[in-house]
Amino acid sequence: TINSERLWDSLMDMAKIGPGVAGGNNRQTLTDEDGEGRALFQSWCEAAGCTMGLDQMGNMFARREGSDPDALPVYVGSHLDTQPTGGKYDGVLGVLGGLEVLRSLNDMNIKTKHPIVVTNFTNEEGTRYAPAMLSSGVFAGIHTQDWAYDREDADGKKFGDELSRIGWRGDEEVGARKMHAFFELHIEQGPILEADEKDIGVVTHGQGLSWTQVTVTGKDAHTGSTPMPMRRNAGLAMARMLEAVDEIAWRNAPHAVGAAGHIDVYPNSRNVIPGKVAFTVDFRSPELEVIEDMELNFREQAQDIADAMGVTVEFEKVGGFDPVKFDDTCVTAVRNAADRLGYSHIDLISGAGHDACWINRVAPTAMVMCPCVDGLSHNEAEEISPDWAAAGTNVLFHAVVETAEI
Amino acid sequence: TINSERLWDSLMDMAKIGPGVAGGNNRQTLTDEDGEGRALFQSWCEAAGCTMGLDQMGNMFARREGSDPDALPVYVGSHLDTQPTGGKYDGVLGVLGGLEVLRSLNDMNIKTKHPIVVTNFTNEEGTRYAPAMLSSGVFAGIHTQDWAYDREDADGKKFGDELSRIGWRGDEEVGARKMHAFFELHIEQGPILEADEKDIGVVTHGQGLSWTQVTVTGKDAHTGSTPMPMRRNAGLAMARMLEAVDEIAWRNAPHAVGAAGHIDVYPNSRNVIPGKVAFTVDFRSPELEVIEDMELNFREQAQDIADAMGVTVEFEKVGGFDPVKFDDTCVTAVRNAADRLGYSHIDLISGAGHDACWINRVAPTAMVMCPCVDGLSHNEAEEISPDWAAAGTNVLFHAVVETAEI
Ligand SMILES: NC(=O)NCCC(=O)O
Ligand SMILES: NC(=O)NCCC(=O)O
Repeated sequence: TINSERLWDSLMDMAKIGPGVAGGNNRQTLTDEDGEGRALFQSWCEAAGCTMGLDQMGNMFARREGSDPDALPVYVGSHLDTQPTGGKYDGVLGVLGGLEVLRSLNDMNIKTKHPIVVTNFTNEEGTRYAPAMLSSGVFAGIHTQDWAYDREDADGKKFGDELSRIGWRGDEEVGARKMHAFFELHIEQGPILEADEKDIGVVTHGQGLSWTQVTVTGKDAHTGSTPMPMRRNAGLAMARMLEAVDEIAWRNAPHAVGAAGHIDVYPNSRNVIPGKVAFTVDFRSPELEVIEDMELNFREQAQDIADAMGVTVEFEKVGGFDPVKFDDTCVTAVRNAADRLGYSHIDLISGAGHDACWINRVAPTAMVMCPCVDGLSHNEAEEISPDWAAAGTNVLFHAVVETAEI
Repeated sequence: TINSERLWDSLMDMAKIGPGVAGGNNRQTLTDEDGEGRALFQSWCEAAGCTMGLDQMGNMFARREGSDPDALPVYVGSHLDTQPTGGKYDGVLGVLGGLEVLRSLNDMNIKTKHPIVVTNFTNEEGTRYAPAMLSSGVFAGIHTQDWAYDREDADGKKFGDELSRIGWRGDEEVGARKMHAFFELHIEQGPILEADEKDIGVVTHGQGLSWTQVTVTGKDAHTGSTPMPMRRNAGLAMARMLEAVDEIAWRNAPHAVGAAGHIDVYPNSRNVIPGKVAFTVDFRSPELEVIEDMELNFREQAQDIADAMGVTVEFEKVGGFDPVKFDDTCVTAVRNAADRLGYSHIDLISGAGHDACWINRVAPTAMVMCPCVDGLSHNEAEEISPDWAAAGTNVLFHAVVETAEI
């Protein structure tokens, strides 16, 4: 088994970089803090005897050599970037859990046949730059690199420029690496494992997602002197559309969900009727058909709302991925590891998207999940216990070593 | 009559400072652009032979001497600050119309008995710093200066500090000046004059307003992995409350209005269920009772919505003024001037708040209004014709000169 204390210490050390305002983290992608976190990770990897690769999307690859020079590496990892009010474990556990696998192999003086590479994927969260899982997406050939470089944050700063600015734009061609397999450890970010009192989630599937940027245009006008019948209130139209999102998601519950997390109102002045509102609708389900259905339904209802109110509405798909089925062999390796170690476990469908969802397109992939308190994530109060972290990392360790062969 | 071309040229020159993105202006209070606009106004006033006074709130007073050293001055003016996406005339016409009165008196070599003072009040719009009409409010003894200095903008910058920073914090005690009368020329910002094909609105009353900052607190959580029944979505609660605002205003239409212009969502990330939303509700009516009723109604409904959704809601009054009745003598002076000049006119209730509403508490006050295209204001497309501007300024000229006596 791995060294649980060392793992926890590393998690806490990483959490010191980009602290949040309420005990969590704000280490958003391509900020100075992201750069600092990367440097700390690199220094740990080098101390563990690894060489560091860096590709043109800033994806980091810390390699521990294997005994067979012809064997493809087993990859393991996740992401170090966080939400603006994110937790200390979302993504970070998967990267530092991977590092702990290498450190434990060093302690045990074990050489695997296949090399093992610990990966940190750039911009998993998708807050500063939509879509989420951007760089694993480029790696898997889903997006072109040029398109990714052109993504803009709220201040109009481009992804490519910011990646250069923080000094983490590498030379390596993205996606050139071939993987024997990929494993990602992640906190569940949902309530099921804790409620079921299970140590481990064996992730068999990931639900799909659709992100639609909705822009409602009315007419900005004075809140005092514009009579009610003359108003074209984009804010009120947005309110009615949010109600539609909720109603549609409930209609497809318990397996589907829907909400709008990002809402910008223009000109956002107390005495101006909003002339424009831009917001993003996030629909998810394990079934592609249901996602497409909800999306279509929403667009129809939003169009009706807009027409009835004399405002216009535009839709732009800004992110999405289809439901995922992970690789049977890799999933079995995870389940066997949990069994062998005596951990209680159930099969899970991931509610969140993960880098593993894209990597699954180009390599046999599976995920390990551990519980988190109250199922809470994307919140600074996100919490896990050192035991949960250790259990997840032990399962990762065994699944990876079995796959990398001794 | 006044020089209509000179007036228009000055309006267009002022509009060059702090241009907007769509043909209007963004010259928000206490920005560098506000400072530039003030300097231009001061240079024009000095060229017209006036001396400039400046009080501790940054209110500017350009004085043209009268013949009677004991006579209190007649004041005339409005504001030079704009909305973030504001027009070229809202406020500016009242200040530069006042300047045109002085320039015309110079042309005609007329000395009035009472001095005439053209005023630019600081922060009328209330966007950057709530409440609106902040500095005329301090002048009229409604707010204390210390309280005003402590107002913060969205970046936490204080009013007092920003006033010093742009170099327009004067020494003069605020409100020490006594006024013989106050006249404000303003565009209607509503559709009535244009629809009625009237040149002039004689403003007899102003409707009252209540601004309430509403803060809804739910729980930020992952949009993908948080099941629908576990959500405490502050964004959805806000949507339902906006619907209540609209319903309440309609119930009290045609004389009442209501909307939310300012909405901030936290953490505002596409894949985070909003944990907090802050928004401002603006209710208005010519009857105090109706405003109080709408406000009470809204708070009850919002509380019910919050309770039903497991979120909390807090209310803070951040602005407000009671309905206003302007001074009969001053109103009559405006009406007589319009008659004398042969302009068509009707009596109006102002839908917007104005500096005149506060000054009315400490001096006999009236307002002149001219039409604006489509009743549109607080929009960069706000437009008036040079003839409308001239008619309004002519009426102002005659009312002021009659009151200041020759
Ligand atoms: N794991 C995670 O939070 N990923 C971000 C992408 C998503 O919204 O699911
Ligand atoms: N005239 C004007 O737009 N004043 C701002 C205060 C208000 O919202 O009525």
